Amino acid sequence: MPDARASSPTSSVEHMIPRDVSTPQNFNNVPHSKETFHHVPEPEMMFIEQNGWFRIRQKIREPAAEFAGVMLLVIFGCGVNCQVNLSSNTGVSATPKGDYTSVCFGWAAGIALAVWVSAGISGGHINPAVTLSLAVFRGFPWRKVPVFIFAQLLGGIVGAAIVYANYFHAIDIVEGGRGVRTLATAGNFGTFAAGFETNVSAFFSEFLITAILLIVILAATDKRNSPPPYGLLPLVLFILLLGISASLGIDTGFGANPARDLGPRILTSMVGYGSQVYTFRNQYWIWCPILAPILGGLTGTMLYDTLIFIGEESLVNRVGSTYPVLLEGRHDDIV
Amino acid sequence: MPDARASSPTSSVEHMIPRDVSTPQNFNNVPHSKETFHHVPEPEMMFIEQNGWFRIRQKIREPAAEFAGVMLLVIFGCGVNCQVNLSSNTGVSATPKGDYTSVCFGWAAGIALAVWVSAGISGGHINPAVTLSLAVFRGFPWRKVPVFIFAQLLGGIVGAAIVYANYFHAIDIVEGGRGVRTLATAGNFGTFAAGFETNVSAFFSEFLITAILLIVILAATDKRNSPPPYGLLPLVLFILLLGISASLGIDTGFGANPARDLGPRILTSMVGYGSQVYTFRNQYWIWCPILAPILGGLTGTMLYDTLIFIGEESLVNRVGSTYPVLLEGRHDDIV
Amino acid sequence: MPDARASSPTSSVEHMIPRDVSTPQNFNNVPHSKETFHHVPEPEMMFIEQNGWFRIRQKIREPAAEFAGVMLLVIFGCGVNCQVNLSSNTGVSATPKGDYTSVCFGWAAGIALAVWVSAGISGGHINPAVTLSLAVFRGFPWRKVPVFIFAQLLGGIVGAAIVYANYFHAIDIVEGGRGVRTLATAGNFGTFAAGFETNVSAFFSEFLITAILLIVILAATDKRNSPPPYGLLPLVLFILLLGISASLGIDTGFGANPARDLGPRILTSMVGYGSQVYTFRNQYWIWCPILAPILGGLTGTMLYDTLIFIGEESLVNRVGSTYPVLLEGRHDDIV
Amino acid sequence: MPDARASSPTSSVEHMIPRDVSTPQNFNNVPHSKETFHHVPEPEMMFIEQNGWFRIRQKIREPAAEFAGVMLLVIFGCGVNCQVNLSSNTGVSATPKGDYTSVCFGWAAGIALAVWVSAGISGGHINPAVTLSLAVFRGFPWRKVPVFIFAQLLGGIVGAAIVYANYFHAIDIVEGGRGVRTLATAGNFGTFAAGFETNVSAFFSEFLITAILLIVILAATDKRNSPPPYGLLPLVLFILLLGISASLGIDTGFGANPARDLGPRILTSMVGYGSQVYTFRNQYWIWCPILAPILGGLTGTMLYDTLIFIGEESLVNRVGSTYPVLLEGRHDDIV
Repeated sequence: MPDARASSPTSSVEHMIPRDVSTPQNFNNVPHSKETFHHVPEPEMMFIEQNGWFRIRQKIREPAAEFAGVMLLVIFGCGVNCQVNLSSNTGVSATPKGDYTSVCFGWAAGIALAVWVSAGISGGHINPAVTLSLAVFRGFPWRKVPVFIFAQLLGGIVGAAIVYANYFHAIDIVEGGRGVRTLATAGNFGTFAAGFETNVSAFFSEFLITAILLIVILAATDKRNSPPPYGLLPLVLFILLLGISASLGIDTGFGANPARDLGPRILTSMVGYGSQVYTFRNQYWIWCPILAPILGGLTGTMLYDTLIFIGEESLVNRVGSTYPVLLEGRHDDIV
Repeated sequence: MPDARASSPTSSVEHMIPRDVSTPQNFNNVPHSKETFHHVPEPEMMFIEQNGWFRIRQKIREPAAEFAGVMLLVIFGCGVNCQVNLSSNTGVSATPKGDYTSVCFGWAAGIALAVWVSAGISGGHINPAVTLSLAVFRGFPWRKVPVFIFAQLLGGIVGAAIVYANYFHAIDIVEGGRGVRTLATAGNFGTFAAGFETNVSAFFSEFLITAILLIVILAATDKRNSPPPYGLLPLVLFILLLGISASLGIDTGFGANPARDLGPRILTSMVGYGSQVYTFRNQYWIWCPILAPILGGLTGTMLYDTLIFIGEESLVNRVGSTYPVLLEGRHDDIV
Repeated sequence: MPDARASSPTSSVEHMIPRDVSTPQNFNNVPHSKETFHHVPEPEMMFIEQNGWFRIRQKIREPAAEFAGVMLLVIFGCGVNCQVNLSSNTGVSATPKGDYTSVCFGWAAGIALAVWVSAGISGGHINPAVTLSLAVFRGFPWRKVPVFIFAQLLGGIVGAAIVYANYFHAIDIVEGGRGVRTLATAGNFGTFAAGFETNVSAFFSEFLITAILLIVILAATDKRNSPPPYGLLPLVLFILLLGISASLGIDTGFGANPARDLGPRILTSMVGYGSQVYTFRNQYWIWCPILAPILGGLTGTMLYDTLIFIGEESLVNRVGSTYPVLLEGRHDDIV
Repeated sequence: MPDARASSPTSSVEHMIPRDVSTPQNFNNVPHSKETFHHVPEPEMMFIEQNGWFRIRQKIREPAAEFAGVMLLVIFGCGVNCQVNLSSNTGVSATPKGDYTSVCFGWAAGIALAVWVSAGISGGHINPAVTLSLAVFRGFPWRKVPVFIFAQLLGGIVGAAIVYANYFHAIDIVEGGRGVRTLATAGNFGTFAAGFETNVSAFFSEFLITAILLIVILAATDKRNSPPPYGLLPLVLFILLLGISASLGIDTGFGANPARDLGPRILTSMVGYGSQVYTFRNQYWIWCPILAPILGGLTGTMLYDTLIFIGEESLVNRVGSTYPVLLEGRHDDIV
């Protein structure tokens, strides 16, 4: 099948799109999609004309998917932080609208939906630590890395802006005055380590969480392990973030994603929280929620590829120098 | 396969139904159903006689499915609102029978089950905002729109009536007297914005939630993205509503569905709550839970189709005028 | 494929079992199972000898599966009732080990696991209301009905006995003395309507819940609707019971299953609770948790088959009298 | 397919690995994996060179997977115990970061992720009781048993060490001083029966839980029952542990896994809790969390194989003595 793609012009979506003459106009099209995955390329494929926008979109689809993914993750994640923490103030709500358990489910839903929206387009990284780990160990094209990370960061900022706009009045009530902004509510956006925690422990916690994140992601997408059926990876991530937030969340608020932390942090600094979000604990924002996840992600990937993964696409398993080239080509085929 | 359907009389369920000579009488028939989806039309198809009712049902199945879907959504959703809020009154229950977290799960279960009951019959819109978005952008037949929306609204009214009948005595206890009805318990049926919230913010919140709803639905049914296996779309919606209610629920009570809000609101106005459910905040019921979701849904659909979707069935990707006709035909094939 | 089965001796598991020479000794055998379902009968089938027990088991497998299913449902369901209610007593546990939300999840897990254990063997009815509805409307063989219901009831009694044995000491502590047994703890086993509820409302509630139960089960197993992939029906039931317990649980404790209610009730009457479990509200145990679910189940089935289901196996769609015979035969093929 | 494997050198991964020339570099590779399961062996298979490490890894992959599995289970499980119990101390957190419900979800997530990481490599036992039951009844190779159990125990110790390192400072705060260690916090790692519970009841509880565990695992992997699609077994285990912890958790803290209990217990005895973790209730650690699960697992397996399972790989169904040999061979093919 890949050969077919390689040997015919139909292989490059840059130049055509498949016309499936049976696409229904309701959710019934999902089974057809299943079929698509089973015998690709489908027989009824044929060239069709395209309107002008189509060519433009082909160039921005991947970053757009990463942007949308992180934006959704942050809308649900920072959203549930705001809903639970702000609604515990009786000025906002007579009764609390959630507790720590709903915080876990809000983040779990956020990552699952983020990946459902982006996985088929960009691979659903929605996390610079994932993008970098795949680039270093799995031959993800380096030329795409900056674009992906920029899109992810932008998604974090926009997502946080949407949440901030949605909870603006409630934040005023909790802060006790229009425009008053302190770390009390900033913690709903960026992450800030728990008071009792040492810097070393905070770093260790973020490092650990992201290493686990990558090990699980790589296992759940390893065709030689026991991955879920295509389209259900988000379910694994739902359970993963549910577990991480419930089990390893009190030290640092489980950032584990530089874009998810820096994006909202930048937004807060712009809307009136000021420089305190950066100066906290001597530039905590750099060394803990950014460096620790990246190092943790690389370590987790190295562990999985060294001990378990046998796919030749891993750096650990490479033989011969022609590989990376092949890789590029293949990757573009898919995208 | 679609060609086969198009070129043979077997393509129209109006005139025959498939006889599967191996249909067992227990849940074992599910794998056969899977097979059905893999090679359609199945070899053992043959004409069989029909009884008279069959022809009638063919005409009402789709609206019936939309009716049943919204009815179930409202039974579970307004049901959990009632159970949690009413049971917090010691006259009703010694201990509360749930908290805000169970409210999230009740609504999540409601939408998932509603779609499981209707997706294969009518496409499982169960939301006028979804129906309108698909009609505007994806060529869903306009002639079906009024029927669908009417069935959805009716489902909302009947579902609310069932919940009201089920919690009648508990409402009396909480309201403090037989037949006493105030907004205190009306909020378990229709939605009413939080006190601190401005009209603009309430509108924005409903707009945002429905835009996200459509983006996720379109991604989870986009065969060129990473949709779940056929029959598991409800799982995505379960996680989606779990996240929306946990993360974006305190401003407006996450209506995001004109039928889910107006149906129960009409019921309450009929059973004794009177006109207050309409006069609240200058006709809040029109501009917030009806207009905002419709505009949000259209916006979400436009964003997804513009940035990510490459299927030609989208308005954004249309080339040539013959398309809509083809579309109609296909749609009828499936239904 | 069904023809193949019908025309060859391999069709009856009474006389042989498939030898799959590749069965591994770990969970890896699941993918093979998937394959099995895709092309049945599998090529590598061949006759093998059987030991004596095999023939005996063939006769008891179905009731054994129904027995195990209801037993598991009751162990998890009555178990979570006991854990949550008994652990709220500080003599049993310093802190409560769960709340109403965990009660919902305990029951949801119970029904899901019960069906995973029995669906492939007996169809996973685990509920007399389901068995009767399938017998009346879907041609489930009447000669199997008494055996199924007896096995289900026995499973309920044994499951309750196991839970009672597990929580014996905790019950003593809560009741305030060894062997003291009152309705205060009996409610953890059988169901008893809420105090404020009238008999009519209690009956309506049980009727409603079971009607919804059947509608969802029939939709989720209707190959012409959008059922989940084979082996994931329990996931639908997990979400269904989660929703029912969260949304419609305060009136009657969501029995919706005569075996789940009568079995534990009989057990309680045997271990010291005495006749009060029967005399409560003039034989409540008969007219509410037994009659209402059966009538509700039949009504739900009638509604689904009349409005949506087009399969000829339904009474509503039958044409010609030879059908029931065929049916029997087929059913035995599968089992 | 197994024959193909058996008759060609491609059958042994010891000597080659499949090159799938279409492996993309993002999550899109999951559908290809699905394909792999559908038509194995895949056409594009060909020999490729290997680097030196590959041969070494082939020997350690299985124990490495079991090690990683139990490590993850303990990180999430003991992690959530620590987060919930320690954060209830205001010195650690202003508000509790979870309740008993999150404890249930933490353990459920732990077992699901543990199996996703290991199922495709080692079979995902992650529990000595499972390994022993499969060895006794299902012909799992005895020569692998010691290696598996050792890897599982080591995983338990390392996992507990990671959790201990992560919560070190919080434990100091709760214990009221640096290095003070009592059973008050030891219970977050090893299990200790509830105060009111007799030894017999504690033993019964562990025995019961593990018997249910095995019955569900065997049913959910029985291709002749209704197992979930390949790659979704962890979902069954998620629901199973959610149910066990919610319904049967107050007596003994649902150990049900000798490695999960002894590993963390050993770690605690090493880091300062001393011998009290062993001397509690006359060597409770041996007879309750080790012996009871093993006996329970064997009993559950015996019940399932006797009453329901018809696969010849079970001891109960064996005919002829050549079987165990065949078995070994097959197993090695797969691994």
